[in-house]
Amino acid sequence: MATVRLVLVEPKNEGNVGAVARAMKNFHAEELILVKPCSLGEEARTRAMHGASVLKAARSVDDLDGALLGADLVVGTSGVDTSSEKRFARIAITPRDLAARIAPMEGGVALLLGREDFGLFEEELARCDLLVTIPASREYPILNLSHAAAILLYELALVRTPRHPPREASGLEKERLHEAFAALLDVTHYPSHKRARTKVMFRRLMGRAVPSKWEFHALMGVLQRATNRIRRLEGDSSPRDANA
Amino acid sequence: MATVRLVLVEPKNEGNVGAVARAMKNFHAEELILVKPCSLGEEARTRAMHGASVLKAARSVDDLDGALLGADLVVGTSGVDTSSEKRFARIAITPRDLAARIAPMEGGVALLLGREDFGLFEEELARCDLLVTIPASREYPILNLSHAAAILLYELALVRTPRHPPREASGLEKERLHEAFAALLDVTHYPSHKRARTKVMFRRLMGRAVPSKWEFHALMGVLQRATNRIRRLEGDSSPRDANA
Repeated sequence: MATVRLVLVEPKNEGNVGAVARAMKNFHAEELILVKPCSLGEEARTRAMHGASVLKAARSVDDLDGALLGADLVVGTSGVDTSSEKRFARIAITPRDLAARIAPMEGGVALLLGREDFGLFEEELARCDLLVTIPASREYPILNLSHAAAILLYELALVRTPRHPPREASGLEKERLHEAFAALLDVTHYPSHKRARTKVMFRRLMGRAVPSKWEFHALMGVLQRATNRIRRLEGDSSPRDANA
Repeated sequence: MATVRLVLVEPKNEGNVGAVARAMKNFHAEELILVKPCSLGEEARTRAMHGASVLKAARSVDDLDGALLGADLVVGTSGVDTSSEKRFARIAITPRDLAARIAPMEGGVALLLGREDFGLFEEELARCDLLVTIPASREYPILNLSHAAAILLYELALVRTPRHPPREASGLEKERLHEAFAALLDVTHYPSHKRARTKVMFRRLMGRAVPSKWEFHALMGVLQRATNRIRRLEGDSSPRDANA
């Protein structure tokens, strides 16, 4: 799995640096390198929250060369996409494509984020193997520095983190649910000419909802209780039971 | 296409509200509703940047009911995912699944983001049709409020914005490129036993790089110039030409 270092080039706002450190902690990124940063004080620490460890371990360097030592793939970010193919230095891929590109890699990836006002300069972009742009409004495509970092780190983390969705109800369980639904239609004397359609409606509804095992059991319980209650009331009309 | 309104429930930090407004402007979201917000001053406006129009148009309401009027789908956000299926109120989908779910919708979607410290309360979560959680570090899953908003808006915008990648070079153009590469191997007397392998290497390299039309033409130009120059020098060794 590739390791990702984040390189902030001449960040001017210490709050942004702190916010980037927080986003890094949120998304399992540890190595932060700062090229000629502003001074970092209370504001940076406050915004970093639990990312304080990332901020504390951040390394400051004097130039881009120092930040890129040992990097196998250098990725620049640009808020300005180009529609001209001739401005090739500005042709960028999306964060999602970047994540897919990096997923099978073993080496070290340096992700460069530029200045809040001027981004990365042309000579810095020329050092990049790949350029990435976050698709955004043409009218206002420039994201806050830490927002851009958060979105990129989010995309990179997604391909690294296996998902554990809740266990879905099995096909057998689902059929039991549909039987329980049919039984309820039965005991409520649901109009017979509407029954087939209503059962399909319920099947489609559940199909879209994709119930978990727990939701299946909860819903089964509700339907069965209702059916049993009706059956019992119909079979036994003693006053004691009517009050139960 | 669904319209998305963002609802911030009792935001405590005006800087966050401004940063959310900026992210909204970045991702084509206009309607911001604030439930019992902190007071908004200079810090909020500074952080909003070009999202000032969104911030200015934001509506403050006294309770969640006022924020949800007319919403067809209410989506809550939670920084804490659950592994217990029984805590069903906390079972969440990912931002990407949410985007796919909303894409075919026509109605109005309300996206709720909770307090910086306590998120959404149980009774607020109970009002939500769907819950979304941004997959993040188990160790520190709580994102900054505006980072969470930016990631969600980014995902929702992606399914709405058609992409216009640069035109790829055609199959015919690519074959011309490979011919030009072969010609260069030829005139440089590249070892014949290595030629086939080197040509495959170049083909695979270009296959992964997916050159645009412009990149194809630029690279063709370089290869052809080199080949032509060698051929000319070999055919004509006059001093005038050697200096050209």
